[in-house]
Amino acid sequence: MTAKEGLTYKDAGVDIDAQDDALERAREAIRASFTPGVLGDVGLFGGLFDPAKVGCGDMVLVASADGVGTKLEVARRAGVYHTVGRDLVQHCINDILVQGARPLFFLDYAAMGKLSPEIVGELIRGCAEACRDHGLALLGGETAEMPGLYKDGDFELVGFLVGAVARDKILDGSRVAPGQTAIGIASDGLHTNGYSLARKILFERMKLALDDTPDELAGRTVAEALLAPHRSYLEALWPMLEADRVHALAHVTGGGLPGNVPRILGDCDVVLRRGSWPVPGLFRLLVEGGKLAPEEAHRAFNMGIGMVVLVDAFDADAMVGDLAARGETAWRIGTVEEGEGRLRWDS
Amino acid sequence: MTAKEGLTYKDAGVDIDAQDDALERAREAIRASFTPGVLGDVGLFGGLFDPAKVGCGDMVLVASADGVGTKLEVARRAGVYHTVGRDLVQHCINDILVQGARPLFFLDYAAMGKLSPEIVGELIRGCAEACRDHGLALLGGETAEMPGLYKDGDFELVGFLVGAVARDKILDGSRVAPGQTAIGIASDGLHTNGYSLARKILFERMKLALDDTPDELAGRTVAEALLAPHRSYLEALWPMLEADRVHALAHVTGGGLPGNVPRILGDCDVVLRRGSWPVPGLFRLLVEGGKLAPEEAHRAFNMGIGMVVLVDAFDADAMVGDLAARGETAWRIGTVEEGEGRLRWDS
Repeated sequence: MTAKEGLTYKDAGVDIDAQDDALERAREAIRASFTPGVLGDVGLFGGLFDPAKVGCGDMVLVASADGVGTKLEVARRAGVYHTVGRDLVQHCINDILVQGARPLFFLDYAAMGKLSPEIVGELIRGCAEACRDHGLALLGGETAEMPGLYKDGDFELVGFLVGAVARDKILDGSRVAPGQTAIGIASDGLHTNGYSLARKILFERMKLALDDTPDELAGRTVAEALLAPHRSYLEALWPMLEADRVHALAHVTGGGLPGNVPRILGDCDVVLRRGSWPVPGLFRLLVEGGKLAPEEAHRAFNMGIGMVVLVDAFDADAMVGDLAARGETAWRIGTVEEGEGRLRWDS
Repeated sequence: MTAKEGLTYKDAGVDIDAQDDALERAREAIRASFTPGVLGDVGLFGGLFDPAKVGCGDMVLVASADGVGTKLEVARRAGVYHTVGRDLVQHCINDILVQGARPLFFLDYAAMGKLSPEIVGELIRGCAEACRDHGLALLGGETAEMPGLYKDGDFELVGFLVGAVARDKILDGSRVAPGQTAIGIASDGLHTNGYSLARKILFERMKLALDDTPDELAGRTVAEALLAPHRSYLEALWPMLEADRVHALAHVTGGGLPGNVPRILGDCDVVLRRGSWPVPGLFRLLVEGGKLAPEEAHRAFNMGIGMVVLVDAFDADAMVGDLAARGETAWRIGTVEEGEGRLRWDS
């Protein structure tokens, strides 16, 4: 036996040093996200978190898992790796916010075929910075090198978030009642849904390049418009939740308005008015370029609404104004009626 | 515009109905995993869990994220999809067990290029059944269809687990002291680590087929040996943890014994004795087939030890016997000495 005959783990495409290197690059950003709830340091088998140390010792936990979808493919082509981590964290934050919860901690999973410490370091740093900005801890995660499963340069990014809500503050649809007003808060582009269709329309059918600037994008490139981070509504909505002004929230993710609004309605219907908000240029470009039927567009894309908020009718104008004061653009887009948990359109 | 010109989301490779179908297939298995801590049903934005309802209302949370690695590739080739979900759950259970925690709930993420409801349903069902068997809830998850990122038939499976531990029961290395005994508990094969190297050795270098039965596998096929589920040590070790007989635990995952045992040692060293446990046939086959240097084999594979337990020397024989009575095979494999957090070998 010669040294050359003997295989190593690295020969099989798995470089444990590269995994360590990736973590090392993100370590300071991870530590900067730590809150008083975190016990221990980076790199334990499991991350330790004490809810009592952040005032959530006797609350219900709310957990959510999500990915970024094929927005990853746009990030890879554009060579921009730190924004998709932010997308993931902010998507997960919204997913638990709709049940009235605030985030406690987040874990990430990043995988590549051949691990690039630079890319994985950027992915984790993006997650860590978004965590720090929203007061939650990046508590742990996993980096995997999976030769053969992912092509060179391709990567996967998955996130997991745990938050907490007091038992009497859980939003579960029971406070939805006829006569309430539906307010829509503006999204920043596609957020994390519809990228497979958007890529097909923009790149295959319309033959656009990442640095093209079609009129509908008002000066932004295709890459900039597609990589705009998934907007988090935590800062804007938290005071309204604490003041019990919000009766239900729907995060407009996969399935769009028709796929998500019915999830929160209980026995009521919501009637949305077409044209009650301005559809942004990116969505108009996609609808025209793909010749999309309206129902198909609404099922694949958020069409400019990232979050739907149900409030008392008398509070609706004040809510729109208060959201504007907190940096969000919002519109009255519909009303709650008696029904059976459906979304209907009033055109 | 004709109907044919108008794109649909499905044209872009994303079939929302297939995602619903996959979830529907696993729904009963998911519900069967629900524990008294779960509030609400399948399909909320975030899963709700009340730790107080399972006696963990004022505990520290422990969270872990993990994948299955390229064991997925073996599962795909063998057409066996329900065991990798179990692998994932049981891997995560061990990862939090080493900090003294018991599992509360689990979330899964499954992704494919073209979503097969049958395969994703099997993946989720495997997770749900392993959750039920260990008394934790499959609280939520995400199914993603990502055309282009995954080749036809390829899939990714990621898991997140949250558990709880009383503040005074956290295992953090502080109870490790010179004179303690290291006990190794037998693994069931590779668990979820080293598959890229194992595949290279068995399939590329040795040209073995999945249904071959080399002597070293004692009658099992290559597929059976490689797909043996990651063993969970929760049931066997929980009574020992409750009785404060365990001073530290190391789960032997990526990095093997040298990569994991030093993570729990505090200021002490552990000295392991070569030959103190029988290396199973699968590992001998891999070492011989790949002409692996011993240090390389120990870094890529668990080499027959799935968990290392540090106990008082006077309790070591009783511990080995009690583990045997609970269905585990264990050996005294080393001792704790004064040092600086290293693993050393006494050959």
